[in-house]
Amino acid sequence: MKIDVLTLFPEMFEPMHHSMMKQAQESGQLDLTLHNFRDYAVNKHGHVDDYPYGGGAGMLLRVEPIVQALEAIDQADAPRIILLDPAGQKFTQETAAEWSQEAHLIFVCGHYEGFDERVRHYVTDEVSLGDYVLTNGELATMVMIDATVRLLPEVLGNDEGTVQESHQRSLLEYPQYTRPREFRGMEVPETLLSGHHERIAAWQRKEAIRRTYLRRPDLLQQAELTPEEAQDLVEVQREEGAE
Amino acid sequence: MKIDVLTLFPEMFEPMHHSMMKQAQESGQLDLTLHNFRDYAVNKHGHVDDYPYGGGAGMLLRVEPIVQALEAIDQADAPRIILLDPAGQKFTQETAAEWSQEAHLIFVCGHYEGFDERVRHYVTDEVSLGDYVLTNGELATMVMIDATVRLLPEVLGNDEGTVQESHQRSLLEYPQYTRPREFRGMEVPETLLSGHHERIAAWQRKEAIRRTYLRRPDLLQQAELTPEEAQDLVEVQREEGAE
Repeated sequence: MKIDVLTLFPEMFEPMHHSMMKQAQESGQLDLTLHNFRDYAVNKHGHVDDYPYGGGAGMLLRVEPIVQALEAIDQADAPRIILLDPAGQKFTQETAAEWSQEAHLIFVCGHYEGFDERVRHYVTDEVSLGDYVLTNGELATMVMIDATVRLLPEVLGNDEGTVQESHQRSLLEYPQYTRPREFRGMEVPETLLSGHHERIAAWQRKEAIRRTYLRRPDLLQQAELTPEEAQDLVEVQREEGAE
Repeated sequence: MKIDVLTLFPEMFEPMHHSMMKQAQESGQLDLTLHNFRDYAVNKHGHVDDYPYGGGAGMLLRVEPIVQALEAIDQADAPRIILLDPAGQKFTQETAAEWSQEAHLIFVCGHYEGFDERVRHYVTDEVSLGDYVLTNGELATMVMIDATVRLLPEVLGNDEGTVQESHQRSLLEYPQYTRPREFRGMEVPETLLSGHHERIAAWQRKEAIRRTYLRRPDLLQQAELTPEEAQDLVEVQREEGAE
């Protein structure tokens, strides 16, 4: 997969050079390029923004530097061009899964300021990370890249790991324990130490249902429960004193 | 405000040393400290994780290094201790606003792995950035810090800017334009060039309603519209051919 990022702060992308992201690039799964669109500034002072017509607080990114930076990238492979914008569609796990099937993504990040409206004409997707305000489109872009790249085949090197985890199946994960067996009076549940695989699997299944029921009951409505899980849910509701 | 971060990847926090975050630290509004909890590893090999009891893919962060790193931080000011976790409450603008009133926040980041369940006993908040899976609690932590710190008094140095923007009032922002007046045949709307403040304000109000109506009608249900905005909404619905 090819990813290009248009940003005024390429140095902020340090987190993309570590851990899973580093491995994805070293193994050739990912080709990530950062472009500073200040290279396409409208004057020799490096200006890329200007005052809004009609007044208002703050500055806006101008359309020309962004469009020129986009046009300098080879688009023969019909990339998705993604604008980070609070008015965009909310980014979800489904978005990440869809993007992970693409050959080429281009992200356009703002920072503080808004965009000239005409930038939207040149993008294919407008996306928001969530209902909160950031100064920093760079961080939002890195979150989306991380969520997408980890779904590429062979990137995590552990198919089982990616399939089983939370949000994939709309259930939260069951409680997990590692050594020591006892920490300041808190012990690992007996069942997990039993070595009895079926009992352990049943415990994990039911505790995943319990956690989801207690914390994110909205997720249960979308989840397609197995017959065993549906039975667990009945028991959990009784144990937790459902009305 | 004091913020401490427990992480295995302090070098990933480069974005916290630029732009608004840099200014917040230089002006004394924010005191940010990164702690590598590998300093509290369980052996001289620097191990902080271990296999899950009962089997399963991947490793889990052990409880001792995290608890010892927490206990090394002065907690006389009763900090919020925030665990990044997909099973946590969803982070929203309200979360950021609430946290921005606190004197001290401590973030505990995981990376890839999950946590030993007993870590939850030592935190006050469990929070998720959204319904997607990341390898990288560091990025999620930085997003939350950015959203929170920008709400501190005097950090953005522009009160008007923070009050007017999107999500604050549950409406999306109106389209904005800057120079040039014409770019490849796309012109700035005439009204914005008129210099007529009332007409400009009316246009911006109505276009914010239109954008919210077309893109995020769910937000309109929570918004408390002024009488003028309610009238705009009626007109927008007619113009956009509502059923």
